[in-house]
This record gives sequence, C-alpha cells and structure tokens, in this order.
Amino acid sequence: MNALTGSDRPDLSGQFAGFADIITPRVVVSESLLTANIARMAAILSPHVALHPHMKTHKSLEIARRQLAAGAKGLTASRPGEASVFIRAGLAPVTVAYPLVRPEPIVMLGRLAEESGVDVRFIVDSEIGADALETAASTSGLPARAFLKVDVGLHRVGIDPLQPASVHLAERIARSPVELLGLLSHAGQAYAAPDIHGVREVAQREREILLAFRDKLAAVGVATPTISVGSTPTVIANAGFDGIDEVRPGNYAFLDLSAMRLGLAARAAIALAVAATVISVNDTHAIIDAGSKVLSSDLGPHSAARVTTYGEAWLPDRPEPLDVVRLSEEHGFVAHRGKRPAIGSKLLILPNHACPVINLAAEFTLLTRQSPITLPVDARDVGASSLAAR
Amino acid sequence: MNALTGSDRPDLSGQFAGFADIITPRVVVSESLLTANIARMAAILSPHVALHPHMKTHKSLEIARRQLAAGAKGLTASRPGEASVFIRAGLAPVTVAYPLVRPEPIVMLGRLAEESGVDVRFIVDSEIGADALETAASTSGLPARAFLKVDVGLHRVGIDPLQPASVHLAERIARSPVELLGLLSHAGQAYAAPDIHGVREVAQREREILLAFRDKLAAVGVATPTISVGSTPTVIANAGFDGIDEVRPGNYAFLDLSAMRLGLAARAAIALAVAATVISVNDTHAIIDAGSKVLSSDLGPHSAARVTTYGEAWLPDRPEPLDVVRLSEEHGFVAHRGKRPAIGSKLLILPNHACPVINLAAEFTLLTRQSPITLPVDARDVGASSLAAR
Repeated sequence: MNALTGSDRPDLSGQFAGFADIITPRVVVSESLLTANIARMAAILSPHVALHPHMKTHKSLEIARRQLAAGAKGLTASRPGEASVFIRAGLAPVTVAYPLVRPEPIVMLGRLAEESGVDVRFIVDSEIGADALETAASTSGLPARAFLKVDVGLHRVGIDPLQPASVHLAERIARSPVELLGLLSHAGQAYAAPDIHGVREVAQREREILLAFRDKLAAVGVATPTISVGSTPTVIANAGFDGIDEVRPGNYAFLDLSAMRLGLAARAAIALAVAATVISVNDTHAIIDAGSKVLSSDLGPHSAARVTTYGEAWLPDRPEPLDVVRLSEEHGFVAHRGKRPAIGSKLLILPNHACPVINLAAEFTLLTRQSPITLPVDARDVGASSLAAR
Repeated sequence: MNALTGSDRPDLSGQFAGFADIITPRVVVSESLLTANIARMAAILSPHVALHPHMKTHKSLEIARRQLAAGAKGLTASRPGEASVFIRAGLAPVTVAYPLVRPEPIVMLGRLAEESGVDVRFIVDSEIGADALETAASTSGLPARAFLKVDVGLHRVGIDPLQPASVHLAERIARSPVELLGLLSHAGQAYAAPDIHGVREVAQREREILLAFRDKLAAVGVATPTISVGSTPTVIANAGFDGIDEVRPGNYAFLDLSAMRLGLAARAAIALAVAATVISVNDTHAIIDAGSKVLSSDLGPHSAARVTTYGEAWLPDRPEPLDVVRLSEEHGFVAHRGKRPAIGSKLLILPNHACPVINLAAEFTLLTRQSPITLPVDARDVGASSLAAR
C-alpha cells in the first residue's frame, strides 16, 4: 500500500499543521490523510467488491458520509446502539456485525430502519440467535435479514464450518422467515500475523473456508448469495477478491502503529493522532497530559500485539520518535533519552490502536487546510438508557 | 482491611442482586459495598487527618455527596474539566492534583470557584507553573493557592526534594502573591509493590521525605502548613499519619482486583463490576458482550501490573472465577475450561482497575436493596469545547 522509507515520519508541519495550537490533550485527524486513506481503499478493491466500512473506528456521521460519497455501498456497526445512529441518519444499509441473542434489539433496529427507509442486516451463529431473529420477524412483521457468521480462525464468534450442526443451522434459517443473505466472517487473527505475508495467508485461507462452506451448503440446497469479509489487514494485504462480494474494513480510514507494524501502511499515512503537551520533566521522562484515559492502554487489536509501549511521541524538533513507555490515567511517561523537552512543548502521539482512542473522546479536531473543525464522536455513547432495548 | 478467606467471592445474589436483570454490558455498583467502603476509610483515618477523596475514580456528583456526608473535607480532581463539575455543584474545596502550566485554566477555575462560593487549590512543580499561577493571580485579582508537588518515588511529576532548585522554587512561591498551602505527593509506585508490606514501606518513605523536606524549607523560612498525601494503597496500608494533615485516595470507594492483589481488600469488598452476557461459545472460550471499550485494556494503575488477563468473570453457578484472557473492542474472551456456559448466561466481571472502566461509561447502575438507580458519570467528558480553557 505505502512504500516504507527511511524518512517515514508524520508530517507535523504539513498534514498535521495546527496541532500545536490546540488545547490538549486532543484527538486530531488530518483531513488530507483521511481523504487519501479513503481514496486508497477504493483503489485497492476490485470494481465488483462492495465496501461496507466499519463505523467502530470513527463513530462519526461526517466521516461515514465521506466514505459513502467515495463509493462505499453500506456501513457496518459493532453494536445495536452504534448501528442506530447511522440508521437514524438514513445512512444504510447498516450491517450489525455482532450476534444478537435477544429479539428486542432486532425489532428496535428493524423499526428504526423502516422509519428511516433503509435496510438493516444482522448476523447469526447459534440456535438462540436464530430464535431471536424468527421471534423478531414474527412479532413485528418486519423483515429479518441475516448473514450466517463463520469462524475463519479468530475463534471468537461464528459457526465452525466443519461441524454438521453448522449446516443444520443454515438449513433451519433457510426454511425460516429469516432471509439468509449469505456468509460473513472477520479474520481478526490477521493482527497476530508476523508480517504482511502472514496477513495475506490469513486472507487466502478465509476465502477458501468461506467458498468451501458455500459449496457444502449449496449441495444441501441452501443458497448463500453474498460473501462478506472484514478487517483492514486482510483487505489491504488481500489474496484477490474472487468470490467475495463485500468487505467491511474499519481501521483503514485512520490507520495506526498496529497497521504500520504489520507492513500495511507507512507511518506517514496514519491520519489519527493525539496532540499533547509536556507538563513536567524529570531525569528520564517527559510527562505529558495524555494518559490511559486519552490514549487507552491498548497495545493493539484483539490483544494480539507484541509491543510493550503505548505509542510514539513526535516532537517538531526531533527526527526520531520517543516511546510512550508508561501510562497513568491522566499522564503519559515519554522516555526522553537524556534530551529534556521544555515544559509546554507540544507533541503528536501516534497510537497503537486508533479505534479505542476515538472511543475515549467526546469529539475530535479535523485538521484541514483552513480552520480546524470540531466533530462529535456521534455513535460513542448509545447505551441502555438512550436505547430502550439493545 | 479485610480478612482474606477461602470463600472470598463476590456476592452475586446478595450485594449484586439484580445484576442479571440489566441490559448488558453495564457498569454496576453495589450500593451496600460502596457505603461500606466509604465508612471503612473514615475508620482507617485518625480524627486529625482530613479526607479529600479523588473524583477520578467515579466522576459522580452523587458519590461525591455521599463521601462528603460521611466526613470528607474536600474533593480532589485530576484535570480542570473534572474539577469544574464539582466546583459548579458547590462541592469543595477542590484540589486540582495536576500541574497546570498555563494561566487560563487557573483563572477559569478561580472564577468558577468564586461564583460557587468555594475554594480551589492547585499544585505546582516548575517555574513555568509558578509563572502561570502568578499571572493568573495578577490578571484576575483572584486568590491563587497551591501546594508544592513533591516527587516521592513515582518519578512522574513533582519536584526532586534533594535538588537546590526545589528549595529555590519554594522560596520564590513563598515571596509571590501565590499562597503556598504546603506539600503534596502521590506515591503511585505503591501499585508496583510486591505486597502489603511493600506498600507500607512506600507510605513510610513518603512521609519521611515530606517531613524532611518541610524541615529543610522551614530552615530557610518557608512555611508549609499542610502535608497532603494520596493513593488508596498507601492510605489503607499506612504507616501512621503523624505529621500528615490530608489524604486523597480515590479507588477505595470502589476497589478492584489491583487492590485485592496487593492485599488491601477482599475480593468481596469490590463494589464496581461489569454485568455482561455470553453471546457465543466455542470449544475454549465463552464470548461475552464486554470488550476493551467497556473493560478497558488496563492491567492495573500506572502500567505497574504483573497480570496478563483483563478481569475475573463470575457466573452464578460456578464457585471459581473464569479469566477474561483476551479482549476485542466489543467482545471479551472468557476461558471456560471445558464447561461451556449457555449462550445468554449473565456474568459479573471484576475489573483489574475500576477507574478507567467508569471513564468508558456514560452512566452506571447503582444496585440497591430497592430498585436499581441509573447515575450519570458527571465529570467524564469535560473537554476543550465545553470548557473554554483547560
């Protein structure tokens, strides 16, 4: 995707110009890098592959609209509450890539989708989930459409394609009032791959598993029209898209150090950072005003990371990054290697994982060529009391 | 504090009764345990020691009011935005235990405090911080009161008491319009202690450092009337309070597995938990609806933890906890050790660190003997745009 070079560094005075004028700590997004990352995804995908980007990365209506304007065919959400924000805004179809096991949130989202005139799609990987979908359809009279979720190696959710019970579940759904849309997977184990070649092998294996299971189901008369795969690593380091109809990457819009470490992107392509300020300095560390409540303690997606630091701190006058080696709740410890930054110095932190960082912010600053724009994290807090049933 | 016993387990059907009826994932707090923890702190402290509990743990006006009703003499906050919520509510004095290096947030909080008729107190550990306080006082005409922050071994913020520059800073402040309230410290390194005896040594050393530095300053004519120390571990496992005027623990109100592992509290005293539901099961793991965006990826305070798991999952019908071994953003992986919980089963997760968990929630449920009460996390999102100057 990006060539890694010796001068691969964030462009503090260009793409992130203005970061040092913001009251910190603050999540900042470079508009030009965001735009480039969105455009690059369209260039990676074959024309027949529909992009349904995952909203969990940014939870922003404005960014969703930009992704749709750039060619995305739908959106993906991780929870009913998150999905509801995009459905209410009429941005759809929205795929809820999370197995619901109760009928109430299915009915609630179905009603919202009907009111907004858009489609909502679910996933199912268990008999209890199929019960919930059927009950939702029969009690509400609304259509219930779902993908069968297939475990392709993350061993999180999804049916095991080698088990007879998985075929039986597919047959049951095909006979039920629920519309079986196809097969859906997320190869999150790609984040544990040693390098980009390992990621590509995961993508290849994911496709093989899904196409073989599709054939197995076809042999018993169950049609699975749409094959939907996910994850930024396996889409960027793809093994081709033959047989694949939809992809659901999320992180590609921002990228982060995890993507860079996998060889998927240059550091200079990372669009999200945290602007911070040095508030104290001692013999070993510069102490900054961003801790675990801003950067998160995440080392990477799916607890798969092999790093032990919490991000890279870039100072305008230092050619190399400094490690964020430790976090308190509201303080970060940056190892300054003997050259003390002045108190008040501004830094730009590239995080390990962008998604939990945006989730810690109520809003973020989009750094543009004109004035910076404040944007809300629209779909962040959509919990039980703001949503009658999840 | 609490006797550790072989039957030390959370009381799911007693103290946490009702947790299984709540739409998950949800942060729940046992009212009876919260009340007991607040009362126990009063019992630990000598009558002459004033309690100024830290609000970063709960960020809740309701809990702050309960702490004040139980005898607390003031509150502590970690950031200007957090402090502003409690000052506006007239709950004070509020100590901002975070070194501010710009005059704007000092003036802003000073004005808020004046409007609310309460006091606000700051900390300072640098010349630039002293500049900010002096500028704030001279431009606003408001009083500026500050503690000199002393590094007692965490090596985060605070002056080094062995350096001549530290004495010079104290002399400068004593001559300035800023009122020097005394010395303040936070021995967060206690979280890295091997056991409760190690914590007590940290507390002992903290007191020695502060009292020695007070004497050194007195010898040059600088008075430091109030000695303020912090941290739940060093207050629970204290080495006596001779010479100490104020304490600022936060976590004690909830407690968590980090406190339990240090030997500071029984597991059965932990008042905050996360209610979750099993949404999928495979050969090795039950997958729950609480991931890093609910539990946080925190292993413990100050990156000091030696654990590699993300909490304990308790099921009503299992006598031992199951480990939360891995987190995706919206899913947790619970190792079920061959005995699969049913999909739909409710669990109670005890977190490694309560403070970042409450910070991820917009609200939480207080489980009482009557109906559960929904409470907002009032001081969670008080960022740049809701606060003109931080």
